[in-house]
Amino acid sequence: MELSTIYQPIQEDLIKVENELRSVSEVDFSWLSKLLDYSLKGGGKGIRPALVLLSGKFYDYNLDYLLPMATAVELLHVATLVHDDAIDKSPVRRSRPTLYKVWGEDKAVLLGDYLFAKAGELTATTQNLRAVKLFAQTLRTISTGELAQIFSAFSLEQTYEQYIQRISHKTAALFNLATESGSVLSQSPEESIKVLKDYGHNLGIAFQIVDDILDFIGTEEELGKPTGSDLTQGTLTLPAMLLLERYPEDNPVKRLFQNRDKQENIKLAIELVRNSSISEECYAVASDYCAKACCNLNLLPDSPSRQALIELADYVIARKR
Amino acid sequence: MELSTIYQPIQEDLIKVENELRSVSEVDFSWLSKLLDYSLKGGGKGIRPALVLLSGKFYDYNLDYLLPMATAVELLHVATLVHDDAIDKSPVRRSRPTLYKVWGEDKAVLLGDYLFAKAGELTATTQNLRAVKLFAQTLRTISTGELAQIFSAFSLEQTYEQYIQRISHKTAALFNLATESGSVLSQSPEESIKVLKDYGHNLGIAFQIVDDILDFIGTEEELGKPTGSDLTQGTLTLPAMLLLERYPEDNPVKRLFQNRDKQENIKLAIELVRNSSISEECYAVASDYCAKACCNLNLLPDSPSRQALIELADYVIARKR
Repeated sequence: MELSTIYQPIQEDLIKVENELRSVSEVDFSWLSKLLDYSLKGGGKGIRPALVLLSGKFYDYNLDYLLPMATAVELLHVATLVHDDAIDKSPVRRSRPTLYKVWGEDKAVLLGDYLFAKAGELTATTQNLRAVKLFAQTLRTISTGELAQIFSAFSLEQTYEQYIQRISHKTAALFNLATESGSVLSQSPEESIKVLKDYGHNLGIAFQIVDDILDFIGTEEELGKPTGSDLTQGTLTLPAMLLLERYPEDNPVKRLFQNRDKQENIKLAIELVRNSSISEECYAVASDYCAKACCNLNLLPDSPSRQALIELADYVIARKR
Repeated sequence: MELSTIYQPIQEDLIKVENELRSVSEVDFSWLSKLLDYSLKGGGKGIRPALVLLSGKFYDYNLDYLLPMATAVELLHVATLVHDDAIDKSPVRRSRPTLYKVWGEDKAVLLGDYLFAKAGELTATTQNLRAVKLFAQTLRTISTGELAQIFSAFSLEQTYEQYIQRISHKTAALFNLATESGSVLSQSPEESIKVLKDYGHNLGIAFQIVDDILDFIGTEEELGKPTGSDLTQGTLTLPAMLLLERYPEDNPVKRLFQNRDKQENIKLAIELVRNSSISEECYAVASDYCAKACCNLNLLPDSPSRQALIELADYVIARKR
C-alpha cells in the first residue's frame, strides 16, 4: 500500500506540517536560510510527523498543539541525520550530497544544533511540560544510542540484546516520541497513551531492522546511498550477526572487522546474505515487532486512524527504501 | 576581587550545583560516564550558574527550580564548548586536551548533543514553560552566532555592528539566559526581569570583548590555550578590527586573512596590539558595556546579591583568564 493512501486520515494536516517545515527556513540571514532549506528539502517519508497526527486522532485532536509537535519531531529527525552524516563522513543520502558534503563538517554540526533548538522551541509552544520532557529525554536517548554504536564499532562481541537496545535508543525512541506526544497532546487517557507509546517503540525497532536488512539487499538506487554502509562504518546489524552465527570460522564480516580487504569482504558479506535465508529470518524478527506494535491497538477507538496505524506497520515491512 | 568572595551570597548553593553536575556523569554505561566526567571536569569559573542563583536572590529564591536551571545553564555552556572545539579542531582548552582531541570528532559531536538534551531535561524540571522556551531560543541563538562566525571567517568586510551582533548571539545570549531565567524562576516582577535580562546581555558582551582582548595580550598559561586562537580561526574580533583601522594599508591581519605567512602575521598582529593603545580602547568599550549592565541594578532591592552583580562586572574586566 502507498504511504499517501495510508496517510489519508491526516492528509491535509500533513501538508500543513510541510508548510511549517518550509517556514523554518525563512530567517533573516541568507546564509542560514540556504542551509536550512537544503537540510529540510531531503524528501523524507514523513512517517514520524504522520505518527504524531495519527496518534492525536483518537481523542481531542487539536492542531494548535499537534502541528508544532509533528514539525518538531521531523526537525529532530533531520537534525540527527545531519549530525550522523557529519560523524560518518557520509557523502550521499536520499540520492543527493549530504549537507556535510556540500558545506563541511563545521556547518553540519552547528546546523544540527540549530535544528535541535528549533525543534525544542516548537515543542515548548505545545505548552505541555510532559511533551517537553519527553522531547529532551528522546534527544538524550538518541545520542546515547549513537554513542553506543560508535563505541561498539568493529567489535564482534555484541549480543542480540545489545543490538535491540542500541536500535531502541537510536531509532525507536523517536517513533516513541511521535506516538506518545501525539497521544499526550490530545488528552488521551493513560491506557491509550501506553498503547500508542508501545506501538511507536515496537514499530521503530521493526523499522530499524528493515533498514538494516535493506542495507544488504537493497539497491543503491532504492536506498539513495551505497549498499553496505553499515559494514563500512563497522556497525554490526542483525543480518551481519546472523551471518557470523552461520559461518563462525571463515567469515567476511569477521575479516572486515579485523580490517582486512574492506571492499572485497563487504561485497562477499552482501552476497552471502542475499543468497541465504538470513534476510527472511530478519524480516521475521521485524514482523514480530510489528505484530507486537499492533496487538493492543484494539484497545483504541475503532477509526480510520487506527486502521492507518495497522497499515503503516505493514508498510514498514514491505518498503524498499 | 576573587570570584570566591563575589560568590559569597550563593556559595553553599554553588557547591550544590557542582554536585548536580557531578551526578550527570553517573550513568549506566561506563564509556558514557567516562566522557561525561571528562567534559564536566574542565574547571570553569562558574559565572553562568552563579548568575542564575544571584538573579534568583531578589524575590522568591527557590532552589527546587534554581538549582536545575543553574546546572542546565552550565551544561549548555559545556556542550557548546565541546562542539566548538570539535568544529575548530582545537587541541587544548583550560590547559588540558579537549574532548575532541582525546576521543575524536564523532564522540565530541554526540556528547555535545547528549549534554544539550540533559540541559533541556533539567530545564523542564523547573516546570516553567517560559524558562523552557528561553532555553531553546538561547541554543538557537548561540548556533546562529557560531554559524555567523564561520560564514564570516577570513572576511575583512565586517562592521563593528556585525561584530557586536555576533558576540551577542554566541556569548551574551547565554548570560542573558542565566539572569533572565534566574529572575523568572524566582517570581520577580517584570521590571526586575528586564533589569536582570539587560544586565546579563551587556555583561555577556563585555565578557566576550575581554575574551577577545586576552586572546591578544594574555599568556598561553593564563589562557589555557595558545594566544592568537581567534586569528588562527579567521575570526575578526574587536582588537583585530581596530588594528585594521589603524594600519589600513600594510597590515598583518589583512595578509593573514589573505592566507599569507600565517604564523608570522599572527605573531606580528599580537605584537602590534600589545605595543599600542588598542587593548585599552577595547577595554574602554567593554567597560562601557559593564556600566550599561549595572546602570539599572539600583531598581532591584538592595542586597548582598546586588552588590555581587556589581563586583562581577568589575571582575569581568579585571580577569586574566
